[in-house]
This record gives sequence, structure tokens and C-alpha cells, in this order.
Amino acid sequence: MTMHGICTMHDQRDSVPTENLVPGEVAAMRRPARIPASGLERTALGRFLNLIGKPDLSVRLWDGSELHSGRPPRVEASIADRTALWRLMLNPSLCFGEEYSSGGIEVEGDLAVFMRAILRARPAALDSRFPLARLLHRSINDLSGSRENIHHHYDIGNSFYALWLDKEMAYTCAYYPEPGASLESAQFAKFDLVCRKLNLQANETVVEAGCGWGGLARHMARHYGVKVKAYNISREQIAYCRERARREGLDDRIEYIEDDYRNIRGQFDAFVSVGMLEHVGMENLPALGRVIDNCLRPHGRGLIHTIGQHRGEPLGGWIARHIFPGAYPPTLGEMQTIFEPRFTVLDVENLRAHYAQTCLQWLARFDEHVDQVRAMFDENFVRAWRLYLASSHASFAEGELQLFQVVFSRPRGYQPPWTRAHLYGARA
Amino acid sequence: MTMHGICTMHDQRDSVPTENLVPGEVAAMRRPARIPASGLERTALGRFLNLIGKPDLSVRLWDGSELHSGRPPRVEASIADRTALWRLMLNPSLCFGEEYSSGGIEVEGDLAVFMRAILRARPAALDSRFPLARLLHRSINDLSGSRENIHHHYDIGNSFYALWLDKEMAYTCAYYPEPGASLESAQFAKFDLVCRKLNLQANETVVEAGCGWGGLARHMARHYGVKVKAYNISREQIAYCRERARREGLDDRIEYIEDDYRNIRGQFDAFVSVGMLEHVGMENLPALGRVIDNCLRPHGRGLIHTIGQHRGEPLGGWIARHIFPGAYPPTLGEMQTIFEPRFTVLDVENLRAHYAQTCLQWLARFDEHVDQVRAMFDENFVRAWRLYLASSHASFAEGELQLFQVVFSRPRGYQPPWTRAHLYGARA
Repeated sequence: MTMHGICTMHDQRDSVPTENLVPGEVAAMRRPARIPASGLERTALGRFLNLIGKPDLSVRLWDGSELHSGRPPRVEASIADRTALWRLMLNPSLCFGEEYSSGGIEVEGDLAVFMRAILRARPAALDSRFPLARLLHRSINDLSGSRENIHHHYDIGNSFYALWLDKEMAYTCAYYPEPGASLESAQFAKFDLVCRKLNLQANETVVEAGCGWGGLARHMARHYGVKVKAYNISREQIAYCRERARREGLDDRIEYIEDDYRNIRGQFDAFVSVGMLEHVGMENLPALGRVIDNCLRPHGRGLIHTIGQHRGEPLGGWIARHIFPGAYPPTLGEMQTIFEPRFTVLDVENLRAHYAQTCLQWLARFDEHVDQVRAMFDENFVRAWRLYLASSHASFAEGELQLFQVVFSRPRGYQPPWTRAHLYGARA
Repeated sequence: MTMHGICTMHDQRDSVPTENLVPGEVAAMRRPARIPASGLERTALGRFLNLIGKPDLSVRLWDGSELHSGRPPRVEASIADRTALWRLMLNPSLCFGEEYSSGGIEVEGDLAVFMRAILRARPAALDSRFPLARLLHRSINDLSGSRENIHHHYDIGNSFYALWLDKEMAYTCAYYPEPGASLESAQFAKFDLVCRKLNLQANETVVEAGCGWGGLARHMARHYGVKVKAYNISREQIAYCRERARREGLDDRIEYIEDDYRNIRGQFDAFVSVGMLEHVGMENLPALGRVIDNCLRPHGRGLIHTIGQHRGEPLGGWIARHIFPGAYPPTLGEMQTIFEPRFTVLDVENLRAHYAQTCLQWLARFDEHVDQVRAMFDENFVRAWRLYLASSHASFAEGELQLFQVVFSRPRGYQPPWTRAHLYGARA
């Protein structure tokens, strides 16, 4: 599945989604949309709304009839035809996104508010599904698989991301010293928070695993005087990073390497990885631990910044298929398979509220440039991307996803600052 | 095993430690101490010193001969007779402590410095022992077992602990905003840090599991205006807590309950446990999670403060037998069996350097009152307790033990402060 999958989703509306449907139902869905919703369909939708936790929601069907669940004030959606209805009910985690993208489902009002209302209702007691979900999760991040997965998302064009990311092209959770900070200043503050947590000293060496468009490497080199080797397997991002470092006179301090984190060589004072672990896959976490063990000096320390979860569930179907194939946000317990028994954790901070805010600001900036995005891609892409940003916001805001920053070191050899107060004072 | 085990350890010197020894060796150990160390003994000791990582150490034997390992400057010890030597070599983790306590081993100079030198040399690569160590660890903390274990350590007399603890009788890691802070102010700062991390609001309710001598409960009630239910299974501590709360006019806000944490009933805004988890036992961690789940309101949050490890090893033999039977410091990964999938971790801070400092201050205060301690117990007790405090200091200073403060909440329902800056500013 490539990004093309999103762009052409509308085509699927002419084909029949035959999985899970008996022939009679398939035939029924080919009827023109003017035909009223049946009693069966209304009953099934009512049960479906109960099943997803009775969100405060009004649904308008193609015949103008409405169903309500929960209480006012309700968010509102409409379903364009019975294809969309049945696909939604039979596989909601995949088909809500597909139908929204293609216009089979429409949301009234603020999409981020809508997604929060849906998530807020989600039944909390999913423990029984936990082992099953773990069994079902099989990601395929061998070396070539990783490259394919990363191309999918990050190589669709630097100019697209430049429309709505900050100037440093940080595509990870920002850090807002105050809730009202701008995206630009919050991404700067995130870079600086990471550097402070790493306790970087001038002329030290840092290895970065998964450097994105290189903003953190530039910040570390420019403001902390360190030398950085930054790894990334996205060709487009590496090209951008090299050109920009050269232009900004930082290419004597930063070496960008187009390669997998498993091929990191050398010895460093610090290891850092911001927004890569989501793509590593749970079965590769101990191997990542060995990579860090091999490249970190005795007094070395590291920081991993990643989307995480409080329970080990695979990503939702639509996100997993269309946005981030191969991705898995680990729990903090699962992350310990990186650290134990080699390293000790010094500090963990959960910044999920900051990621909710980041996604909201990205969505606003995306909307400011929506005409340019539509011209680069098409309306399906616009809708898919808006849904992705809005549902990410909702997931962090409603505690479905976490954002962990974990600082670690070898159990001896590194003496961290006496308290964490230096993270919150003026820079030395 | 009760505390009496330490006090009478000297008696064991008249008996023969027959485990692991063949009859000829047992007979040899009964010879008078004047007989020179044999070539076998000197060779064995040399190999033993290699095995424990070649610490920078000089050992003087009973015949005046010396063995050196590592490099100068060396810490120094002497071994009084061959009983002590063979017991040390055959079971060092148990018998170093026993022989030091009874005078079979003497340490020259600063005991804390000595213990750090020994620990610093410890081979880091113990991975292969890891699964075995896990298998060997079988603690027995059923309800009655816990009571027995806790009596052992905490019921030997409030007046003993009052000699060298701070005025609030905090027997857990202090928090030093500056390294040079006094113990009194550092324990106050620890209580306050815990309250800030819990984001306590006036008139909220707090349940405390394992309240010690009640200092945190008094701090929370006095300075944050909350109502506290505090559980403890040590009768002597509960009696102290109740008397003191009454005397200080806090008994309308604090209810001290002599019971196990597993019997906590009611609903609370916050759960806190400082220095109890070490006694809970790994197999009981999921049950603790269920206890917290049952007593925490939807917007509730919790903090667990515990000694921890970076790898799952049982406590050393001497500490496990004579000081803390049944205790096990969990790894951060093991701790997640408390939290996942019910709760999400918001903040983890590793305060091991603060515990190293706390132990050093406790040791200094203990030494100031050593004559009173000797009068209350005997010389063996004094030596055992000094070793316990010095080796605890060394374990935290050298990264063998960690101190984790973990803040958690349900994944939704609680909105933590926007950043952690409030932990480091002036109180609101």
C-alpha cells in the first residue's frame, strides 16, 4: 500500500466491498441512494452506536432520517449511502477513515471535536481483548520492510510537509512551555528540552537514530556545539538535511547518513532518537538496546522520544493501512526491553497533552494551505490527511495515545545533574 | 529470622559452619588463629579477589601477611581467622556481612568508601545470571508473611530510629534541592515534592499504603489540607503515628489504620506509597494494581516511591537474611505490571544519588549516637547496622540500586499540570 492508496480511495466506491457480506446484501447496496434506510439498517446502526460506547452523536442517514446516541450537545455526522453504512459497521476502524476520506461519511462542524467525542465514549474495559490484540499484531520491520514503510509516509514530498510544519520541519511532538506558545517556539523548546535532558556539553559526539528533516541535529550542533552523526532511511529527507546543513554552515559538525539504525557504527557520548521508535516494531526493541549498548561510551546517556500506549494494542485499521503501515507505539513496559538489564532509566516524561496541541496546530496550518494541498494531490488526500491530524489530536487528548520522553544511561559511569530544576531555569 | 539474629551473630563463631565444607576443612578451622595461612588459602583468596572484579583492596590475614588486588589507593580489610576467610569465600554475599558484624572481618578507614570500592569493581556483565537469579527469587509475602517480615525490621523500637532519623521519622530517600541540604530540610523537601507531583488540592482525600511513622501523612494534612487514610501493618509505627497526630492536632484529618494494603477500602482522589513496594514482592504487583484501580476515583492520580533496580536480581544474601527478609526492589519494567493496562505513567524520576546522600547522613547521625545504640543492643548490632547503612549508600552511589518515583493516573479523567515547572518554582 502506498500513498496512492489514499488518493484513489474514491474509486472504490464504484466497486463492491464483498468481504463479510452475503450476496443479497451486496445487491442491496447497489440500489440508488434514494431508497430509504431499512428497519434492519436502523436497528443495526443503533446497536453499533451502543457497541462503541454511546457517543454523544447524531447520525443523519441518506434518506434524511436521524439516529441519536448519548446526550446533547451532540456532534453530528451524515452517511451518504448504504455502502458507507455497512462498511462502517462491519469494520469501523478501517472503514470510518476510508469512507470519510472518500466522502461516504461527512462530519458537521469541527473534525477534532468530533473525533474527541467518539474517542471519549470508547469503553475503557478492553482488557479481555488485550492478549488477542497482541497476537494479531505482526509487524514486518526487517531492513527492507522498514525502508518500504518509511518511503510510504515520509517521501511523498518535502514541499508538502513544508506547507504546514514549522521552519525546522519537526514532524514530532512539540513542547509548549506555556499552552499558548506558537508552533515555531514550541518546536524550538522541544529541541532544547531534549538537549538539556541529554546534558550535552560542547564538543561531545551524538548519534541520532531517525533524524527526520534534521532539525534536532541542527539545533544540537548550532546551540550546544556538539558533533552529530544522524541516521535516516528516507532518501528525500536525507537530501533535504544535507542541503540545508551545507547552506547553514553546519556541515562540518553534522554528518547525515542514509542508513538503518541497526547499522550505526562508532562510539558516542549521547544517543538520541525522536519519533523513530514507533516504526521500530516491538520485536526489534531488544536489538535496538544492543545497538545503543554498542555505540554508547561508558559515561554516555540517551533519550528516546516516542508515541506510546498504556496497553499494548495495534494501531487502528485505517491508520495502520493508509497512514503508518508497520508502526506500533509501545507501552512503557515494552520499552524496558530496550533498557533492562543494560541501562537504567533516569527520567520519563509523558507529554501527551503537548502532542494533542501540536496536532491541533498542524491541522490549523494544514487548513490554511488546503488549496495548495488539493492542487498537489486531490480532495481525497486532503480529507484523509485532515482526518489523520484530527484523530491524532483526539487520541492524545483523550489518553488513547501517550508521548514518552525517556532518559537513560548505563547504571554507573554517568552522573546526571543533581535535580531536574535545570530543565526549567534559564539556560546556563 | 528476627532482629535477634543480628544481635547474637557472634555466638555463631563458636559453632562450625558445616554447609559446603568437607570434614577435614571443618577440623582445620578449629585450629587456633596463630597458625599461618596456608598456600591453598592464599591462592584461593587471590582467585576470589579476581572473581569479584579485582577491587582496589588490601587484605591482611590473621598471620600478618597481606594480599593486594587492583591499584593504589587501596581500601583495607583484615580477616581475623580462617573461619572468617572460608565463610567469606564460600558465600560472600551472606558471610561478608555476618563476619563484619561479628568482628571476623575488620575494615580500616571509612566503611562507606570501602563498600563503594568493592561495588565499583563488581563485574557489570551479569546477564547470564539474570534468569537464574529470577528463578531463585521466591519471596513469601502472603498476608501473614508480610506481617512477620515487617515486624522484623520496623518493630525493633521507635526510640532506636528516633536517634538517627529526622524529626518526622522519615525512613525513605530524602530529596536534596541542593546537595548540601540538611537531612531535616531534605526530608521536608521530599514530602513536598511528593505532594506537588500528586497535585494535591485542599479537601481532597488521599490513601497512603505503608505510612511508616506517618510523616508524609502529617505533611499532606498540615500543608495541603487533605484528608488522609494511612495504612501500615507495623503495630509500633501505627501507635506512634496515632499518638503524634493527636498531639499535633491532626487526628481529625488523618486516620491511621493497622492493616495490609490489600485491605484498602473506599474511594480516593490520590493514592501514594513511599517505601512500601520493596516489601510487596514481584508476584503481588498486579494485585497492587487492582487495589489501586478499586480505590482511585476517575480523576485520581497516584505516586509510588520505591527502591528499584535496572536488572531483576534478588537482594544480596546478608541484607535479605538479616536486614530485609522478603524484600525485592523491582525493575521499572516489572513495575509496569502494576500500571498496564489500567493506568498510564505520567512521570518517572530516578533519585538514586539522593538516596546515596540520605544513607550517608543517616550513617553520620547513627555514629553520633553510637554509644546509645550500643547500650540499647550490643556491638554486633552496631556493626551490622553501620554495614547496612554504608553498603546501602554504596549501592545507590554505584548504581547497583535505583530510587524510582513514578506518577501515574488513569489514561483519561485526570489533567496533570501543563509542564513539570511547578515542581521547581515557588509554592503557589
